[in-house]
Amino acid sequence: MDDTRFARTPQPPYYAVIFSSQRSAEDPAYERAATRMVELARLQPGFLGVESARDEQGYGITVSYWTTLEAIAAWRAHAEHAVVQRSGQQRWYAHYELRVARVERAYGSGAAP
Amino acid sequence: MDDTRFARTPQPPYYAVIFSSQRSAEDPAYERAATRMVELARLQPGFLGVESARDEQGYGITVSYWTTLEAIAAWRAHAEHAVVQRSGQQRWYAHYELRVARVERAYGSGAAP
Repeated sequence: MDDTRFARTPQPPYYAVIFSSQRSAEDPAYERAATRMVELARLQPGFLGVESARDEQGYGITVSYWTTLEAIAAWRAHAEHAVVQRSGQQRWYAHYELRVARVERAYGSGAAP
Repeated sequence: MDDTRFARTPQPPYYAVIFSSQRSAEDPAYERAATRMVELARLQPGFLGVESARDEQGYGITVSYWTTLEAIAAWRAHAEHAVVQRSGQQRWYAHYELRVARVERAYGSGAAP
């Protein structure tokens, strides 16, 4: 089991960006960009963690966790991220939905994290 | 593209239950129970929709959307759901994290939903 796939978030409150998406055609540039965006997100002030799953039909959900709405806004406006967002909208996703939510309660299966 | 995989949620605010989980061994009873739980959730007062992705490693994220915290609490306490929650904790998941969050903003790629 890969524990690193679960975000080690603090006690609530904090914020979640829930990104649901359907990939369109395969594109090797997508994987590179997605990996780079996670690396870059980890460096942003207020980043708490990320969880992501995508199935064989190309449907995926990525949830990133942040300390504040301001941290989310700053990441959204980040120059390199903005370029990739446009590629996503134009080339990589047939459809996506993005929701910003305030986490109020959290509990897990006991073990770490 | 399968538009039915995106929840048709109203304008915020509303609530999201973010459930991240790592499946343990394969179990055909799991699929049946998971399907039944979605059918049952759809009948609950305050249910708005659900989005779910699980990858080939058995790691998945399911987000269900609800009108109020009371609706979430009622679903959590539902008798048949409670039985399945215990099975999940004991047999089906190596690890899970559950977060309840208030959706404050939402936007998508333009088309329906």
